[in-house]
Amino acid sequence: VTTVLLPTAGLRERLAPHLPGRDLRVWAAGSGERMPWPADLVVLPYMAPPSALRALEGWRGLAQLQTLGYDGIAEHLPPGVSCCNAVGVHEASTAELALALILAMQRGIDGAVRSAAAGRWEHRRRPGLAGSRVLLIGVGGVGREIARCLDPFDAELTLVGRTARGAVKATAELPRLLPEADIVVVAVPLDTATRGLVDAAFLTAMRPGALLVNVSRGPVVDTEALVAAVRQGKVRAALDVTDPEPLPPDHPLWTLPDVLVTPHLGGDTDAMDARIDRIVIEQVRRLESCRPPLHLVAGGGR
Amino acid sequence: VTTVLLPTAGLRERLAPHLPGRDLRVWAAGSGERMPWPADLVVLPYMAPPSALRALEGWRGLAQLQTLGYDGIAEHLPPGVSCCNAVGVHEASTAELALALILAMQRGIDGAVRSAAAGRWEHRRRPGLAGSRVLLIGVGGVGREIARCLDPFDAELTLVGRTARGAVKATAELPRLLPEADIVVVAVPLDTATRGLVDAAFLTAMRPGALLVNVSRGPVVDTEALVAAVRQGKVRAALDVTDPEPLPPDHPLWTLPDVLVTPHLGGDTDAMDARIDRIVIEQVRRLESCRPPLHLVAGGGR
Repeated sequence: VTTVLLPTAGLRERLAPHLPGRDLRVWAAGSGERMPWPADLVVLPYMAPPSALRALEGWRGLAQLQTLGYDGIAEHLPPGVSCCNAVGVHEASTAELALALILAMQRGIDGAVRSAAAGRWEHRRRPGLAGSRVLLIGVGGVGREIARCLDPFDAELTLVGRTARGAVKATAELPRLLPEADIVVVAVPLDTATRGLVDAAFLTAMRPGALLVNVSRGPVVDTEALVAAVRQGKVRAALDVTDPEPLPPDHPLWTLPDVLVTPHLGGDTDAMDARIDRIVIEQVRRLESCRPPLHLVAGGGR
Repeated sequence: VTTVLLPTAGLRERLAPHLPGRDLRVWAAGSGERMPWPADLVVLPYMAPPSALRALEGWRGLAQLQTLGYDGIAEHLPPGVSCCNAVGVHEASTAELALALILAMQRGIDGAVRSAAAGRWEHRRRPGLAGSRVLLIGVGGVGREIARCLDPFDAELTLVGRTARGAVKATAELPRLLPEADIVVVAVPLDTATRGLVDAAFLTAMRPGALLVNVSRGPVVDTEALVAAVRQGKVRAALDVTDPEPLPPDHPLWTLPDVLVTPHLGGDTDAMDARIDRIVIEQVRRLESCRPPLHLVAGGGR
């Protein structure tokens, strides 16, 4: 009988009707509790640090992430363990949040919330999104979803990928593209090529007053360079991810005007549950029929 | 020669190259300054109160509003003056703001701004927009734009108009429709039929925790009933318009949790200028060729 370790009782309850006859147990890697062997599939806690994988040491099997990002996973994966990411679970929610951040900053929602606390009705013109030039860096699942959500808002969209193909420009063209954009959205995975992509030179190349939106991973942006650029009034920023994360209480990003920080809300909506359920069910069926798992990103047969 | 009175020097400067040979003067109705006759067309200040029309007393001609809404205009229009509203100027911006408000409330942007002020990283799951049921009341220009902007977000949209036609439900069906909606967006003109539309009974019929979004006019919502419903934790609200407006500094709506108030930002973006210019230029051409003006809403030949 297939044994699946699930990080929460809620997930176990949701999956039980779909996986009758299997042994579904609750265990969260990284909780400090010992892993209850045997197990065929381990679903990791949502947004667990990669170091949680150390709890799988000595076991052989398949680990399923609940995130799309898998930075740091290969480095922490014990030998004999394969790992899959959660493709198709968070793309739409993250794009929805990217639009929420863009619209909030272009229409002054952040300022309105601050003014409301002081009971101040402060009407002033805002730039808006219509007619603005958006540079979207990242053409993976999240990037494509953001492009789709931007469509009705009549912005001028330019896409940037690792390499140029069709209408997609290459990262190497950024120095030429950045000065033309009113809004720059970063939606790339974190890896050696993207770590520190948004550095002092990147920020200097941006248009004065332009908006930087980061919905990927914190270390894609050089935090110190960003703080300096915002302090100089050079750029505005909306960040769902930060470096460090969580941001410590006294960090300057919390209180700089023209900065909006959300606490890594990207993928975490009510829409997530059904999509995670679907992946786990599919992985169990594939294990049972000896088919390769979906979305293998580290270890195993890769 | 055609004489046009414009409320700001900026508007005069923008229009001058497009209207050579005409007499373009700066005068703002409601400023207290006497109207400098003669004039063929008067453009009113953006968001001037309808009482500003009193300054046209004794004159005969065409007055151009810079707003789409024209509530109170007919009541204040002096005899002999016709009045046109600004169709096509604000619909896209207002829809953009409606999406900004919906996404902000569904994804916790308002809460994040409040937490940031205290340096608090407070991650929690949010409902999101995808999969939610949206009831959109109003199928005029703004309503149609909101529907278009909602399209990529995979919400279940129900449209409500004065009367049923095709997929559009009638206002009379609201008691049945309200309990099913997660988000209720009001985008109707203010008139005798819509004043106080969102009253205690309307709010009671809404789903517990549902979101009310008002981007039309403040008096469409009974403010006292809304404050009571929010205090009871019955509904959440995002309001770009209020009654009274501006909201006084000590008003409870400013500080109630689950309420987001923006200071009537709906139509006021950088995209507005070019659209207003286009209308004024067209009205001048129509006056000069004795064609009826565009978008006549009160007085004159109507």
